[in-house]
Amino acid sequence: MATIKDVAKEAGVSIATASRVINNAPHTSESAIVAVQAAMAKLRYRPNANARALVSKSSNAIGVLVNDVSAPFFGTMVKAIDSIACEQGKQLLIGNGYHDAEKERNAINLLINSRCESLVVHSKGLPDSEIVKLAHEIPGMVLINRIVPEIGSRCIALDNRRGSYIATEHLIRSGHQHIGYICSSHDIDDAHDRHAGYLDALRDNGIEIRNDYVEYGEPDEMGGELAMINLLAKNTPITAVATYNDYMAAGCMTLLQENGIRIPEDMSVIGFDDGHIARYIYPRLTTIRYPIQVMANEAVKLSLLLASHDDEANQDKQHKLFVPIIVKRSSVSHPK
Amino acid sequence: MATIKDVAKEAGVSIATASRVINNAPHTSESAIVAVQAAMAKLRYRPNANARALVSKSSNAIGVLVNDVSAPFFGTMVKAIDSIACEQGKQLLIGNGYHDAEKERNAINLLINSRCESLVVHSKGLPDSEIVKLAHEIPGMVLINRIVPEIGSRCIALDNRRGSYIATEHLIRSGHQHIGYICSSHDIDDAHDRHAGYLDALRDNGIEIRNDYVEYGEPDEMGGELAMINLLAKNTPITAVATYNDYMAAGCMTLLQENGIRIPEDMSVIGFDDGHIARYIYPRLTTIRYPIQVMANEAVKLSLLLASHDDEANQDKQHKLFVPIIVKRSSVSHPK
Repeated sequence: MATIKDVAKEAGVSIATASRVINNAPHTSESAIVAVQAAMAKLRYRPNANARALVSKSSNAIGVLVNDVSAPFFGTMVKAIDSIACEQGKQLLIGNGYHDAEKERNAINLLINSRCESLVVHSKGLPDSEIVKLAHEIPGMVLINRIVPEIGSRCIALDNRRGSYIATEHLIRSGHQHIGYICSSHDIDDAHDRHAGYLDALRDNGIEIRNDYVEYGEPDEMGGELAMINLLAKNTPITAVATYNDYMAAGCMTLLQENGIRIPEDMSVIGFDDGHIARYIYPRLTTIRYPIQVMANEAVKLSLLLASHDDEANQDKQHKLFVPIIVKRSSVSHPK
Repeated sequence: MATIKDVAKEAGVSIATASRVINNAPHTSESAIVAVQAAMAKLRYRPNANARALVSKSSNAIGVLVNDVSAPFFGTMVKAIDSIACEQGKQLLIGNGYHDAEKERNAINLLINSRCESLVVHSKGLPDSEIVKLAHEIPGMVLINRIVPEIGSRCIALDNRRGSYIATEHLIRSGHQHIGYICSSHDIDDAHDRHAGYLDALRDNGIEIRNDYVEYGEPDEMGGELAMINLLAKNTPITAVATYNDYMAAGCMTLLQENGIRIPEDMSVIGFDDGHIARYIYPRLTTIRYPIQVMANEAVKLSLLLASHDDEANQDKQHKLFVPIIVKRSSVSHPK
């Protein structure tokens, strides 16, 4: 592979001049720029990003840690971050953490070691103490979808409990008194908070809380299907079901329809997230909108500000809590 | 941030010894390892991945270019590559190309400049000539879902035409004579090949080809919905529709059902890809299985072999063509 020496020789300029052209330094003569660029093209010279990163002490990449980029929710989050990155002429380095402490640690370490100064981190596996340590080490690290009080100003989160409350309240206002809940079996805040919001709404409306109305499963279509099978097997009088997310709602709905249970006539279903799938299952899903794009935008902008040592960005010590809203479509009606 | 000098001083060893421990070199004394590791922990020293990459001339990352990581198809592909990467102790660097020549070029350049020696590239925007140049520059570059004859041995592709042929033939064998086709409006091989497979099957079965049975749209749910609106508006006697992919099928099905057209009683629908969504729309979608996981596995393994300069891997000059199969579920039946 060609070196900068080869380029300088080919262009008939000094190595210093070649370097200035390559690094877009000011005060470079037009003729030198033309000669060096021609030499670079001829020799297929590639400036070494690693060498550049060493010099500038940072790479041109924004690091993102997600649970699993193949889940559409995280795909949407990554895309929102990528659109800001493109605007800023930066690229993304993406790592999967799979909600596992060890994997999250390894992925974050690679991102840090690759000199990403901006980091948007969706971590559920690492303990608060480790997150705080990392945050102190990396001024441009921002947490999304998690609140760690010690670094509140760098946390962007959703009021999950409120979201589930709104969903359950909508079912109650539609006339339902026997409302099931399909919960994620993952031991993460999101699952606990959404379950709690469901219970809050029942309690505030004087409706009896029954444990046999709640089933757990993996937070995907298969998990929703299996949870619904279990709910049906118990032969409870439920006429509506709130779910942890749209995927569980979709699995639950397919199962119901295959068993001749009409939606919403026989059973109302409400989702959570308002992902792509919500608009394209039949009937279209009434759900809670998780404003992940707005939140991801906010997170990456904050991260870039912090990384550029703009202390202004860090003055507000409170975390930023986004509020979900309901999107009414066709999967909820009055009970028969 | 602590340097290797600080670590050596803290550990009471020479810089050379500290370096040997940090780089896991052989013949290092147990006491030196313990002392250096303790010093690293105390000083929170991080070996600089960029500096390491410079020395070894390659990073520990596998580069992946996809169209858009937020599309579930590419999410699945990236996940399959990530699982091999994890096995090999490597991480992924992911870039989005959005089927655009300029964006693909920039993303590939960043991956190359970041010294990824293994590259799995899903490119639709760059011309063959540029792909060939890049492939010669980067021995570990492998193309997925595209065939460039000059570098056939490094291409992993699917027989898209055959897939659509199988889908259409299944509808014909189910008794349909008036079969619509919902085509992607993107000007890429996949779209042309799948459309051609549909036409082949009609021709081989002596069924008249009618242009008004074909509609185009963006290859997503919204595109499928709009294409189906156009097909219905023309009031053709179609009783079945083959689609470019599962997302278009899903959009088309929701629209049909909202208009009281039952699936499959009134209209049979067949998809393409067998993505996650296929099993969780109602009725469950009969579709063509795109073996993207197997293909992605194959691509990354080949890429790693080629990057390690194992010439054995490169002897077969033919591209590798995978064959799709049909997965029968509940969205196709005999016409009324």
